[in-house]
Amino acid sequence: MPKQVDHDQRRRLIAEAVCRLAARDGLERVSLRTVAREAGISMGLVQHYFTTKDEMLVFAFRVMSEGVQRRLEHSMAVLSEPPTTRSMLRTLLLAMLPLDDESRFESPLWVAFLAHAVHTPSLAEPLRQDSRQLTDFLVDLLRGARETGELAGDVDPQAAALALLGLSDGLMMRVLIDPGSAGLAVQAVDEELTRLFP
Amino acid sequence: MPKQVDHDQRRRLIAEAVCRLAARDGLERVSLRTVAREAGISMGLVQHYFTTKDEMLVFAFRVMSEGVQRRLEHSMAVLSEPPTTRSMLRTLLLAMLPLDDESRFESPLWVAFLAHAVHTPSLAEPLRQDSRQLTDFLVDLLRGARETGELAGDVDPQAAALALLGLSDGLMMRVLIDPGSAGLAVQAVDEELTRLFP
Repeated sequence: MPKQVDHDQRRRLIAEAVCRLAARDGLERVSLRTVAREAGISMGLVQHYFTTKDEMLVFAFRVMSEGVQRRLEHSMAVLSEPPTTRSMLRTLLLAMLPLDDESRFESPLWVAFLAHAVHTPSLAEPLRQDSRQLTDFLVDLLRGARETGELAGDVDPQAAALALLGLSDGLMMRVLIDPGSAGLAVQAVDEELTRLFP
Repeated sequence: MPKQVDHDQRRRLIAEAVCRLAARDGLERVSLRTVAREAGISMGLVQHYFTTKDEMLVFAFRVMSEGVQRRLEHSMAVLSEPPTTRSMLRTLLLAMLPLDDESRFESPLWVAFLAHAVHTPSLAEPLRQDSRQLTDFLVDLLRGARETGELAGDVDPQAAALALLGLSDGLMMRVLIDPGSAGLAVQAVDEELTRLFP
């Protein structure tokens, strides 16, 4: 058992080094060599855990993705009880914008993984799973809100879930390019929610 | 004069090679060497036109961006006269989704430039200019629609313009990851437009 724990910890250590490097310099700077240096271990040890760069990136993406999920769950858990669907959605969507240190670290990382996934089927699959899981979560929330009458009557939960995630991804990208648009991005999320929850 | 024309053509030839390479394999595969090979010219000639990789990327981004703008203008120009603001916006937003060969070529390229721009101030600036120019164009459209009464009364043109561009960027990313969601993405754009133009 102790050995297994060590392996997990080392893989995580390497994944976190990948994420720091990619967030700081972009994924193109990630190599066995730079990751080993960033993690303070030997290249041989990195290679012991990951045979290829893509394998390492897929694992790093999963570690980042779990971290994002924990952060989103936490931001929703601290809402005053009982939260409305609208307040849960608002919290979730704003948590995806680069408005604080954590999300400003994660946003460029997410874009870097996406850019790489377009050419890397092994990475595209976990991104797709992630995307579907989050969409399904929103669809459930919106269906519940339709039953309670919170949601506007003409809204299709499937299309609205995709639209809301699309909106927060897209605003994330705009704010990354143009940090001065952060306030307007928050306003855009609020106006969208007002249209869905009149 | 003929010499000037040659220079422009060669710079474009190189920029197009950068775009093809980046769309196919990602920006991390772009180097003076790979670009020279892709363009069928010598590395020395590439270096004659671009001192650094970043300088080459900035120019390639501008060439791509001009191409996108021409495509968007064309897609709006062929609308039956007189187009409504809603139909212009719909055409523009759908043209940004990876739904045909041209936009499927450009979308990954745009994401790749964005991922790189996060770490490259010289590239961030043209992306920011591009983003603001497109936002301003939408703000003007929406202001006009408010004056004619087409637009719902409670919509702020500035926030709505950012939201619409965010939406199409984000949907573009979701469709890139999960091409099966293309139909739902079009539906999401249409429902959003129905809310703005009731």
